[in-house]
Amino acid sequence: MRQAVVGAPRLTQARCELLREIRVVDEYGEHRSIQIPSERPLTVFVDKRELVTLMTLGAIPELLVLGYLCNQRLVSSIGEIESITVDWDVGAAAVKTHAGIVDFERKTERRVVTTGCGQGTVFGDVMSQVDALVLPDAQAARIRQSTLARILETMRQQDSIHRKAGSVHGCALFEGAELLMFIEDVGRHNAIDTITGWMALHGISGADKTIYTTGRLTSEMVMKAAHIGVPIVVSRNGVTAMGHELATRLGMALFGRAANRHFLCYTGAERFDSEPEIRPASVRVVSG
Amino acid sequence: MRQAVVGAPRLTQARCELLREIRVVDEYGEHRSIQIPSERPLTVFVDKRELVTLMTLGAIPELLVLGYLCNQRLVSSIGEIESITVDWDVGAAAVKTHAGIVDFERKTERRVVTTGCGQGTVFGDVMSQVDALVLPDAQAARIRQSTLARILETMRQQDSIHRKAGSVHGCALFEGAELLMFIEDVGRHNAIDTITGWMALHGISGADKTIYTTGRLTSEMVMKAAHIGVPIVVSRNGVTAMGHELATRLGMALFGRAANRHFLCYTGAERFDSEPEIRPASVRVVSG
Repeated sequence: MRQAVVGAPRLTQARCELLREIRVVDEYGEHRSIQIPSERPLTVFVDKRELVTLMTLGAIPELLVLGYLCNQRLVSSIGEIESITVDWDVGAAAVKTHAGIVDFERKTERRVVTTGCGQGTVFGDVMSQVDALVLPDAQAARIRQSTLARILETMRQQDSIHRKAGSVHGCALFEGAELLMFIEDVGRHNAIDTITGWMALHGISGADKTIYTTGRLTSEMVMKAAHIGVPIVVSRNGVTAMGHELATRLGMALFGRAANRHFLCYTGAERFDSEPEIRPASVRVVSG
Repeated sequence: MRQAVVGAPRLTQARCELLREIRVVDEYGEHRSIQIPSERPLTVFVDKRELVTLMTLGAIPELLVLGYLCNQRLVSSIGEIESITVDWDVGAAAVKTHAGIVDFERKTERRVVTTGCGQGTVFGDVMSQVDALVLPDAQAARIRQSTLARILETMRQQDSIHRKAGSVHGCALFEGAELLMFIEDVGRHNAIDTITGWMALHGISGADKTIYTTGRLTSEMVMKAAHIGVPIVVSRNGVTAMGHELATRLGMALFGRAANRHFLCYTGAERFDSEPEIRPASVRVVSG
């Protein structure tokens, strides 16, 4: 177990069932049992004021809330938070701060409904902070093709709720090819928020890390990775134009459609040490 | 072209590029061009007051805004809206009503951040309206297995942005096996909102329709289908526990993991006329 940083908030360890078994009928008319993910609402109160309701699988709700507060820039340091108390009986997370949240009204007044796969509301301030974000330069933070291949292989072998029940997104934090943290949730934004909470709790820097996600890389996913200082992001899925544009502006490396040793480097190839595989002869394009 | 209902709002026909071509590097170190979907922010103003910013692909933004207002229950009839003017140069949709929106403040004060794949904010009132929704009974609204198979085949053959660029969700409206409307967006919520707008504009009832979506069936997707009165929903993807629970409570039929003649009926099998296929002998389970 990693140690929490000094001054970290007290967290409950609320747990709940992540899967539910139901009966279904298949195309052959046969009844069978399958598992589906159990999402549930979690209403976040900050010093007794209602902030937002998150729909979540609920695996580690305290870290989700902590990461959400960090990623929305509602707190600038987790030392501002005294405790996070989650009670599934009432579906509530009570956040207690030491001295209130500065500019709470202003920070929460604008809404942006995002359309990536996942958690939708990012408050207005977040989008305007891009240019203040600086990632480590391309010499300091790089990835080799063999490391990327090992990350993909680790994720392929990972036991997961997705494998049992589908309908969730996973997000993982790697240092080199070593998996530090893996979390699944009904939305990919919740998953990266939970990783954010875990990093904040343990005082872990993103500068030498890689984020893997099963979800699409939209602008909000890129922004969240940048906020936690991670310069390399890998997705099994694709990239949208705004995600691409933002990552390019930030100097982030984005790898998409990454699975089974295949991938595309969408931007930030200067961070990538290519060790190209040999294209199978049968599909090699011969020109001239 | 279908006619708009009498008293329908005036809509602009703002159009924009849906795809962008970018250069990528693949796992063989080769440079190539691919297309990615262009999402962009669209800030909705109602009578000059800012409501929300939607991230959208932008295929039919006027119908997206119209459907959003309907699904959020901000208007009870489209006759309340005089016009929707979308201007991509400023990324804004100006909604003008005839007489203002009743209870605007109250209707927009609560936020629920959803975690399905897509547009996240549903205002508080929406979730509390489930029990007021009544779908046509199981005798009146049914689907045959052969119809479902034709729907899946139609979707399989559909030319799509997803096929060209990935990273979008599609949503389609069927009457029997006839495709009435198909739309893609970066979020599945935007797609069903656009279908909602299309139905509202043309005065089309959902009672004898089927919704197909590529996205997961979370509670919000089920709720949106119920709001437009559609009793049968089909997804290529899975179902979450809250989506399942809500659909069961509503008496809606949910089909998931539906592709290539395969599917699971998660709930509402009483609406389904099974014409079971013969399970291939090689995988048939022989008991006794």
